[in-house]
Amino acid sequence: MAKHQGHHKVAVIGGAGYAGGELLRLLAQHPCVELGMAVSESHSGKKLAEAFPGLRTPIVFERFDAARIIGECSLAFFAQESGFAMEHAEQLLAAGVKIVDLSADFRLRDPAVFQQWYKIEHRCPGLLERAVYGLPELHRDRISTAQLVANHGCYPTASVLALAPLLETRMIIPDSIVIDAKSGVSGAGRAKHTLDYHFPEMNESVRAYGVGGTHRHTPEIEQQASEIWESSITLSFTPHLMPMTRGLLATVYAKLVSPRTTAELIALYAARYNGEPFIVLHDEGFPATKVCCGANHCHIGIAVDDRTQRVTVVSVIDNLVKGAAGQAIQNMNLMLGLPETSGLEHGALWP
Amino acid sequence: MAKHQGHHKVAVIGGAGYAGGELLRLLAQHPCVELGMAVSESHSGKKLAEAFPGLRTPIVFERFDAARIIGECSLAFFAQESGFAMEHAEQLLAAGVKIVDLSADFRLRDPAVFQQWYKIEHRCPGLLERAVYGLPELHRDRISTAQLVANHGCYPTASVLALAPLLETRMIIPDSIVIDAKSGVSGAGRAKHTLDYHFPEMNESVRAYGVGGTHRHTPEIEQQASEIWESSITLSFTPHLMPMTRGLLATVYAKLVSPRTTAELIALYAARYNGEPFIVLHDEGFPATKVCCGANHCHIGIAVDDRTQRVTVVSVIDNLVKGAAGQAIQNMNLMLGLPETSGLEHGALWP
Amino acid sequence: MAKHQGHHKVAVIGGAGYAGGELLRLLAQHPCVELGMAVSESHSGKKLAEAFPGLRTPIVFERFDAARIIGECSLAFFAQESGFAMEHAEQLLAAGVKIVDLSADFRLRDPAVFQQWYKIEHRCPGLLERAVYGLPELHRDRISTAQLVANHGCYPTASVLALAPLLETRMIIPDSIVIDAKSGVSGAGRAKHTLDYHFPEMNESVRAYGVGGTHRHTPEIEQQASEIWESSITLSFTPHLMPMTRGLLATVYAKLVSPRTTAELIALYAARYNGEPFIVLHDEGFPATKVCCGANHCHIGIAVDDRTQRVTVVSVIDNLVKGAAGQAIQNMNLMLGLPETSGLEHGALWP
Amino acid sequence: MAKHQGHHKVAVIGGAGYAGGELLRLLAQHPCVELGMAVSESHSGKKLAEAFPGLRTPIVFERFDAARIIGECSLAFFAQESGFAMEHAEQLLAAGVKIVDLSADFRLRDPAVFQQWYKIEHRCPGLLERAVYGLPELHRDRISTAQLVANHGCYPTASVLALAPLLETRMIIPDSIVIDAKSGVSGAGRAKHTLDYHFPEMNESVRAYGVGGTHRHTPEIEQQASEIWESSITLSFTPHLMPMTRGLLATVYAKLVSPRTTAELIALYAARYNGEPFIVLHDEGFPATKVCCGANHCHIGIAVDDRTQRVTVVSVIDNLVKGAAGQAIQNMNLMLGLPETSGLEHGALWP
Repeated sequence: MAKHQGHHKVAVIGGAGYAGGELLRLLAQHPCVELGMAVSESHSGKKLAEAFPGLRTPIVFERFDAARIIGECSLAFFAQESGFAMEHAEQLLAAGVKIVDLSADFRLRDPAVFQQWYKIEHRCPGLLERAVYGLPELHRDRISTAQLVANHGCYPTASVLALAPLLETRMIIPDSIVIDAKSGVSGAGRAKHTLDYHFPEMNESVRAYGVGGTHRHTPEIEQQASEIWESSITLSFTPHLMPMTRGLLATVYAKLVSPRTTAELIALYAARYNGEPFIVLHDEGFPATKVCCGANHCHIGIAVDDRTQRVTVVSVIDNLVKGAAGQAIQNMNLMLGLPETSGLEHGALWP
Repeated sequence: MAKHQGHHKVAVIGGAGYAGGELLRLLAQHPCVELGMAVSESHSGKKLAEAFPGLRTPIVFERFDAARIIGECSLAFFAQESGFAMEHAEQLLAAGVKIVDLSADFRLRDPAVFQQWYKIEHRCPGLLERAVYGLPELHRDRISTAQLVANHGCYPTASVLALAPLLETRMIIPDSIVIDAKSGVSGAGRAKHTLDYHFPEMNESVRAYGVGGTHRHTPEIEQQASEIWESSITLSFTPHLMPMTRGLLATVYAKLVSPRTTAELIALYAARYNGEPFIVLHDEGFPATKVCCGANHCHIGIAVDDRTQRVTVVSVIDNLVKGAAGQAIQNMNLMLGLPETSGLEHGALWP
Repeated sequence: MAKHQGHHKVAVIGGAGYAGGELLRLLAQHPCVELGMAVSESHSGKKLAEAFPGLRTPIVFERFDAARIIGECSLAFFAQESGFAMEHAEQLLAAGVKIVDLSADFRLRDPAVFQQWYKIEHRCPGLLERAVYGLPELHRDRISTAQLVANHGCYPTASVLALAPLLETRMIIPDSIVIDAKSGVSGAGRAKHTLDYHFPEMNESVRAYGVGGTHRHTPEIEQQASEIWESSITLSFTPHLMPMTRGLLATVYAKLVSPRTTAELIALYAARYNGEPFIVLHDEGFPATKVCCGANHCHIGIAVDDRTQRVTVVSVIDNLVKGAAGQAIQNMNLMLGLPETSGLEHGALWP
Repeated sequence: MAKHQGHHKVAVIGGAGYAGGELLRLLAQHPCVELGMAVSESHSGKKLAEAFPGLRTPIVFERFDAARIIGECSLAFFAQESGFAMEHAEQLLAAGVKIVDLSADFRLRDPAVFQQWYKIEHRCPGLLERAVYGLPELHRDRISTAQLVANHGCYPTASVLALAPLLETRMIIPDSIVIDAKSGVSGAGRAKHTLDYHFPEMNESVRAYGVGGTHRHTPEIEQQASEIWESSITLSFTPHLMPMTRGLLATVYAKLVSPRTTAELIALYAARYNGEPFIVLHDEGFPATKVCCGANHCHIGIAVDDRTQRVTVVSVIDNLVKGAAGQAIQNMNLMLGLPETSGLEHGALWP
């Protein structure tokens, strides 16, 4: 695709995984950003099409090379397992290369909390306070001026977008929050092809994991919720694997402080997300995950149960787009001063 | 299969739907019960194999004929939409034919509550107090002497088996209960082949329905929970459709009254369900729905989250077996004085 | 998306079906063509998002209105059931509106053959000779100057692209041709949500249909093959439904006239399809349907079996893109003098 | 399940794979055969339920122990990768233990052909002539007196049952035979959980493999076809993987020697398979794979295409039942003098 003038080059590091591949796919259709370098240790020397046969480009994966990134790219995406970005972020930042990190390295503000959940010591804790949490609907202004953005995880994106309006208005009782989330299997990543994800075992089956608050996205959701609430929130979060490839649905439950109708809450969300290009609010009914397949949308539906004084919010995203690569590009657009929706205006695939 | 002597004949009414077909499949392998009559208005005159090509039997569907059932059968299964069993139950019972009703006609004790949720007036409210709720793990003795059993719904089975030990020991705070349930699409039934369940629209997609406490299984679960608790419980129940055919998983959340460890709760469940032939307790980890495909099992896993003082219980069943036809046969076995596991001893299909 | 200057407006008729929806999705990202009018009798007055929740546009479906199309649009896509385009084509063509018809109305040259297979009389047989068959890899020049293009069907596209190089070089024995094709269920369309396509019945199951040469794509494939061969070819074509939404794979078998190696045939295809923007030839191995999900590609793999002197060609497409809407846009691009790949440069979704 | 008196004990070797697990499941419901020993090197010391959570039995996997098998069992099933059975068959047979081998070790009569396709030298070529090919519908009498049965592979079972009546009556031209087969992913086995079978990559995708006659089931099918034809037949066989767990469909094409109607051929098959307990012939229409899920049936549909003088036969089986474990039990029943349908009378799961 012919790119506009004055465009930027960017690097994708960890390009052979699912989030990396989705970055490559989306960048190829971005009107003013060009892929400068695709890095994959496992696939270096191979064409992109060997990892992703549906990408038709002559570009070849390379080994990580900080000097080349610094010489050629305005921004680098890190899409590898946690632990890699923290090794290289300081060097790139020092040279003026902006970073969007899709791993968890810069998501948790407290290095002790990071170590507790990820079992490795943080290598550059000094950067944690400079990192901006990459959920534009909450932190747009700070992202626009950030050098280092910690791209939101998939479960936290769906969960926090569902919760934010209720927390901001203090309409719910924080310790009543229960988040029951359901994800497609691509969320487990490409490298993890163990027996648990073997097609015959995963197909036609649903299972919970990280039950009892043990999933690593728990502290990330709590940190965001606590920031909005301005004091510490502890909540229950349980992810489930669905027998499908893409899509993530979060069902969020909370007790209301005082009675509200469904219509009042829909109006609250409509006001809060007014003008948001990627939030789709349902006036009635609830979205299926399929409505955002391949698109950067987050659809939200809301219902109040008078009998229990509980509100239920259902949010759906494509875990690889608004839950990973699409949001990373949305963040990149803000950081580079481009229109926020550039390269993300396409609709969802249906069916 | 050669049947033992002294066997019973039974009728299956509504045999061309999914629960009916599963009854036909399971009865065919029952060692001491024989299918006397398969009733389907839509398929009358056709072989069973026209509705279920995998059932190899010369039996032909017939129209409903109370006199023939009375003359030949000890027991009748009603597997039709709500509204049919209540028309015919009194006549059959009066003639000594026992009934297992898989519809909702006799599940709710209060005819006003029935009318509120099902939008039809109950035709024989006098039978409601004679009907025994058909969940053997809770009501085995009463089922054994019952003439009329209201077979438990699929969601209530998974939910109540997960909750019962906690309610019986008053370990949890009732109004903190949230049940997030996930079912395969066979739960929607065979007649309902609307666009919502059209393969290309349902495939690769998850969606919530009945959000805000509007699903008809809500009062059924609350009635059972309230009976155990001996006072009224209101809880949140949200079902979801999964892109798979069979299987149902309930994730049940509740606040603990006082701190408990996961090990303590597993021990509680082990004691409570000791000797239960169809309950499988997981010492560690959590079951996937696939582990009970085709079998009458309910697998349960438990975890306590110290951070939130919430317990999470995950239970899985095959919605058409322990959630419908298998449980109906378990109830039948008790009602006819047969071994409870007769015809239900087979393991699950894997993979 | 901001459109370039000098762009065209087009109409999509039959916009609420799967091919129509895919046209809407692809047109929305086309750099120099704009949707002027979306027609759906069943959805008129409703927003596009009511039919396709993942399309974020304020456009509303309208009833068919020839005058408005003539007044505003350069080209109209017909994406309805057969029988509709033939009613309206003459009027639009006479007024200078070009037509890409995705139905079968203009695919068969002989009105008698049309009537034999479609059981309706052709309403404008005079247009049949003006209609150009819309497979650009075979008929690019004629499409460029055509007013009326009969867009290739999904099975014929995969089949003919697989066969053409062999027929053109007369390397195979025509009456040995067997085409065994496998399609995702979206190929059955959106309106056809009968029990056969009900999720629980279709899921986890493969079936053949149109066995014995009775599928309507048979004469279409034979007509194309015969044109290349310059004399009449009769072949065997059997379609199968796969438990998946998108994707189509054709396995084409034919006896070789004289011995050839796999390498020789790959070289033949490479030469024949050299420069084709949407044909992807595999030097080794065979493509899975997933490699072209959402993209306008056709991937081809080839093997010769020395033992049987048979060549096997495997071609895969996305049945809704290269098999329907993508190819329609490729044809439109040629007809409007736009770059052939405009709006179709995106890669496939993976995974 | 209480077993009848006079029952047999059998051993399952390679019990932790899919075919082994299916044997364990089916044996558990066999009325007169008991599992004496389950062997798995990888799972020795673990309960069966650790490999198959849906099997509720206290039995524990053990290491291979020929002496114990000889001391306790009448028959042993080998369900391991090729190469294991040939190491141990002689010892067991010498001690009077009968063998049903589900691997390929004894399927090919010619040790040179075995070595060509399996790349290992045969260790006991002398046993090859004693081995009986385990397809009861063709070799019932010889199986009944056999000590060593080579259980038919899944593709060969579906293919040969579809072809046999045509070959036996010499109605088709042998070198026109094309077999296009489609299998669920369980056919790839449990150990092979590589990226190719990772859920996100395999889901929603169809692919061919072994194209060009390179799949190891080719010589097995040809050997069977040639035996019927009484001279050597070479044919084309191409397997495909479907995005589903169980089920196998073979579409078999062949040119007729002289014109026949579809009705004539259905009559031919009806006569040939008259009385066969597991063959289900379709008078009209064609079976989907789902009709035999979990059951030992083979469904067959037939159509003649007058235009091409080709007959198309579609046969479907559950690849793990009639294609592996069910057929193994059918063979065992014959070898032990039990009713052929013992333990196999259950219908298919639907949906």
